[in-house]
Amino acid sequence: MTGKDGGADLHPIGNSPVVILVRPQLADNIGAVARAMANGGLYHLRLVAPRDGWPQEKAWRTASGADRLLDDCTVHEDVASAVADLHHVYATCPRPRHIIKPVLTARGAAAEARLICARELRVGLMFGPERAGLDNDDMACCDALIRYPLNPDFMSLNLAQAVLVMAYEWWMAEDQTVARTLMTNETRIATKGELENFLGHLTHELDECGFLKNLPKRPGMVRNIRHLFQRGEVTEQELRTLHGIVTELALGRRLRGRVEPP
Amino acid sequence: MTGKDGGADLHPIGNSPVVILVRPQLADNIGAVARAMANGGLYHLRLVAPRDGWPQEKAWRTASGADRLLDDCTVHEDVASAVADLHHVYATCPRPRHIIKPVLTARGAAAEARLICARELRVGLMFGPERAGLDNDDMACCDALIRYPLNPDFMSLNLAQAVLVMAYEWWMAEDQTVARTLMTNETRIATKGELENFLGHLTHELDECGFLKNLPKRPGMVRNIRHLFQRGEVTEQELRTLHGIVTELALGRRLRGRVEPP
Repeated sequence: MTGKDGGADLHPIGNSPVVILVRPQLADNIGAVARAMANGGLYHLRLVAPRDGWPQEKAWRTASGADRLLDDCTVHEDVASAVADLHHVYATCPRPRHIIKPVLTARGAAAEARLICARELRVGLMFGPERAGLDNDDMACCDALIRYPLNPDFMSLNLAQAVLVMAYEWWMAEDQTVARTLMTNETRIATKGELENFLGHLTHELDECGFLKNLPKRPGMVRNIRHLFQRGEVTEQELRTLHGIVTELALGRRLRGRVEPP
Repeated sequence: MTGKDGGADLHPIGNSPVVILVRPQLADNIGAVARAMANGGLYHLRLVAPRDGWPQEKAWRTASGADRLLDDCTVHEDVASAVADLHHVYATCPRPRHIIKPVLTARGAAAEARLICARELRVGLMFGPERAGLDNDDMACCDALIRYPLNPDFMSLNLAQAVLVMAYEWWMAEDQTVARTLMTNETRIATKGELENFLGHLTHELDECGFLKNLPKRPGMVRNIRHLFQRGEVTEQELRTLHGIVTELALGRRLRGRVEPP
């Protein structure tokens, strides 16, 4: 009935936080939340008093294959029973007011939750209903609040987007991907020696064709050409292409008889 | 017709990247993209060959008030004309293959884009169609690719979610919110002296009521109580409440005649 045999092959990685949706309204949103959780490596979903009951087939349709999270999701009567076995609970709250509570950014909370999970303690991330958000009693069950820094002129996030930001930060808190690399596939970045070899070839042909014939200006022109090619990482394959381009352009010139072959 | 008089009062902050949707299919998604952009302070939207034409009223319905971005959005025939006035263009690409291109994380690209925008150059962020993604010719128009680190077992992001992650990172790249604070509203964090004053009061009453009567164990018990109250930041208002609790509990005990008043 609810896609128990379908979906992606999702297996929890280590000890990860439980997402608790408090009084969620639309099944579509619950499915979209499961999808967002899976994106960031969150696997455990609990529902507190879902408005339309549970299970709801619609949720599986919007989960885009994160079926397992919905299959395994548990339903609880109230917040207290949903968090009873957890050790540390965060509540997301866009507009906290008149309460004394630690407030973390999503990034700060993700880093802290990683540390707590590493101690084999169980962490919860609580999200309120679509429009109203969490009430004061819900928040009193939590250790800390999470408030996303976002454009103050436009803070409206839907439930799945709110979960996505938190799931993404959870993933990023341990991600080791370098911030910038050059994808080179079968080739590799050229060494300075290989680049020098090409620049020598180019300069030679530019001397041959007369492009560098103004001798007082020649050193500056050669340097400017060097600056251009030194600006980005060039691959070994691209250098071979450049050698070929220079050779063929020079040869074409010679074949058209505009300069004498050497 | 398309909500030109409605929506949030959104005014661009500084020089921010242009979001370019290439061959987007569903108007719902275009609206949801506008909403996600506004969340992160991105204001400029361009559409390349939207499948169902433009404008589409549905888009305004899913924009949740980010109407202005849709009102101001421009439509282009091809990628080349959409990027012609830009200086640096990133393409999001979940599965880059067989091309030689710089690849950045969303966070890395956001930081780099902030630097480029600060130089008054115009940056583009290009997103492909819902299912197919960008093709190789689209990517050849770009300076670099962006690939989000996400759970490799479940990478499926919808278009608006992909834009949200990038918009969020753009916002976070300049956000100064402290990662963890204590929201204290009208009160403030207590000083060590105020805490000491309360601990003196508590210890006095615990001596009075006999809780600390085991003199060899007394120093250790007092230290353990200290450790508990030193663990978290306590506010001045909470200390007053704690003073009141101790006073009332001690008084109640006296009124019930279980100990003599001092």
